[in-house]
Amino acid sequence: MDVAVVGSVALDTVETPWGRNEDGLGGAATYFSLAAAPYARVHLVGVVGDDFPEGHMALLRDRGVVLDGLERASGKTFRWSGRYHEDVNVRDTLDTQLNVFEQFHPNLSDGARNAPYMFLGNIHPRLQLEVLEQARPKFVGLDTMNLWIQTTRKDLDEVLKRVDAILINDSEVKELTGHASVVQGARAVQALGPRIVLVKKGEHGCLLVTPEDVFAVPAIPLDDVRDPTGAGDSFAGGFMGFIAAQDRSDDGTLRKAAVHGSVVASFTCQAFGTDGLARIGQDDIAERYQAFGRLVRF
Amino acid sequence: MDVAVVGSVALDTVETPWGRNEDGLGGAATYFSLAAAPYARVHLVGVVGDDFPEGHMALLRDRGVVLDGLERASGKTFRWSGRYHEDVNVRDTLDTQLNVFEQFHPNLSDGARNAPYMFLGNIHPRLQLEVLEQARPKFVGLDTMNLWIQTTRKDLDEVLKRVDAILINDSEVKELTGHASVVQGARAVQALGPRIVLVKKGEHGCLLVTPEDVFAVPAIPLDDVRDPTGAGDSFAGGFMGFIAAQDRSDDGTLRKAAVHGSVVASFTCQAFGTDGLARIGQDDIAERYQAFGRLVRF
Repeated sequence: MDVAVVGSVALDTVETPWGRNEDGLGGAATYFSLAAAPYARVHLVGVVGDDFPEGHMALLRDRGVVLDGLERASGKTFRWSGRYHEDVNVRDTLDTQLNVFEQFHPNLSDGARNAPYMFLGNIHPRLQLEVLEQARPKFVGLDTMNLWIQTTRKDLDEVLKRVDAILINDSEVKELTGHASVVQGARAVQALGPRIVLVKKGEHGCLLVTPEDVFAVPAIPLDDVRDPTGAGDSFAGGFMGFIAAQDRSDDGTLRKAAVHGSVVASFTCQAFGTDGLARIGQDDIAERYQAFGRLVRF
Repeated sequence: MDVAVVGSVALDTVETPWGRNEDGLGGAATYFSLAAAPYARVHLVGVVGDDFPEGHMALLRDRGVVLDGLERASGKTFRWSGRYHEDVNVRDTLDTQLNVFEQFHPNLSDGARNAPYMFLGNIHPRLQLEVLEQARPKFVGLDTMNLWIQTTRKDLDEVLKRVDAILINDSEVKELTGHASVVQGARAVQALGPRIVLVKKGEHGCLLVTPEDVFAVPAIPLDDVRDPTGAGDSFAGGFMGFIAAQDRSDDGTLRKAAVHGSVVASFTCQAFGTDGLARIGQDDIAERYQAFGRLVRF
């Protein structure tokens, strides 16, 4: 089944202790698309400026991502710049230039409008609502952030009522619900709408909470993290991509989907920008999925 | 098979957002003993003062812990006082009084000397070496801390050469080896001596690294953490207790042992002081072990 994603497409400049990547292909919708592409046909909805390199477009197309919904506006592409420390959980944002993204209003392509699976990347909740006014997907996934929790809570609550799954980190769970306990917090998030809550804990893995199930996914230990940018969006891509491919979202499928999310995100972390995602095939995913099984089986 | 443990026995005063426990039974060797007791006969080697309540002795004895090696010295028992915040990974030590523990030199009881399994709790590495001069256990487990890594590295290196397993937290791995990557760090710790490295990540679980295996144990999500004091020592007790009960330490057994450590430690966190450990039976452990299986299976 097809998946649509709405969110940022960016040019990222990233420094880590292991190197620097200037004006690399970035953005939440980009990482999501490349991560979901091995599983399902992905329709990307977003905006870039007239400075966006044709090579980046080609890379997305080569991976099978449908770009009919990627608007090209006059002006500069959204730019983000950040620096990671040796403890890759700590990052400093050096610069954010919204540029053409500031005036972005999602305009769904036919493919995106008809996709049964939809992921709302981390954008203003009003824009997320605009997406849901244009489509009636069968399954909606959501990302959000502390900024929207703090400043646009009413809009966010509207969105929450209309989504099936939310990906949220542990500190955001606390901000949204007041609960420091992850499971209690996840239950409180469910009360706001989403049946499926995926609590991300950075390098410590994640917790999948559904009405009748709790599944713990430890992070895949990596010796060679290079750049964790986009890991969360890659997780979302693998997770939603797998669900779309199976076209079901029972607890057993969701567990496997969370492992796929973790597997795909691990490739992202091992290279700069989208380089890790851009080169993986079905075999690489299958091999690491098996390795994950060995990592946790007892 | 019998297990011996050498380490602190204390009176702890602990404040958490959920309550306060004054002069409660505490200390690394205490938590270890109570956690290992459901699996094996435990010989506790340590020291208490003449103020140590008979009730605490009775509790240990009731759980089957052999106290022949628990010296009673003239003076006050080791006292520790601390406060936890709502984020239980953050704790402030309010007061530490070594008291009789300051002059402690381990003197192994016959039972401890002959125990095939030995755990060296977090005490000065010179004292840990004194223990190993008195006994030739078949399997030695070790705990240590940043203080010893920073101030007594030479003695610690001597100890490391003589142990089979080390329990160490992620920041200590970095201090000991310079590696920020957990797996690389664990491999570097192995080069110092111990074949088995258990990297503890607090509420995020742990990683078991052996020469040919890496096993990830996510933490058991708990809705009702009350007091995490002693969780690490309880983990060690469940881990070593299970290995002693099986009398083997192949990779498959070590994986199960790590899950048992995690299970037992979870009971510790759910009540103040040793209350959680003091009331569990085989059935409780078996039930939560099964639940852990459901938590990670996919």
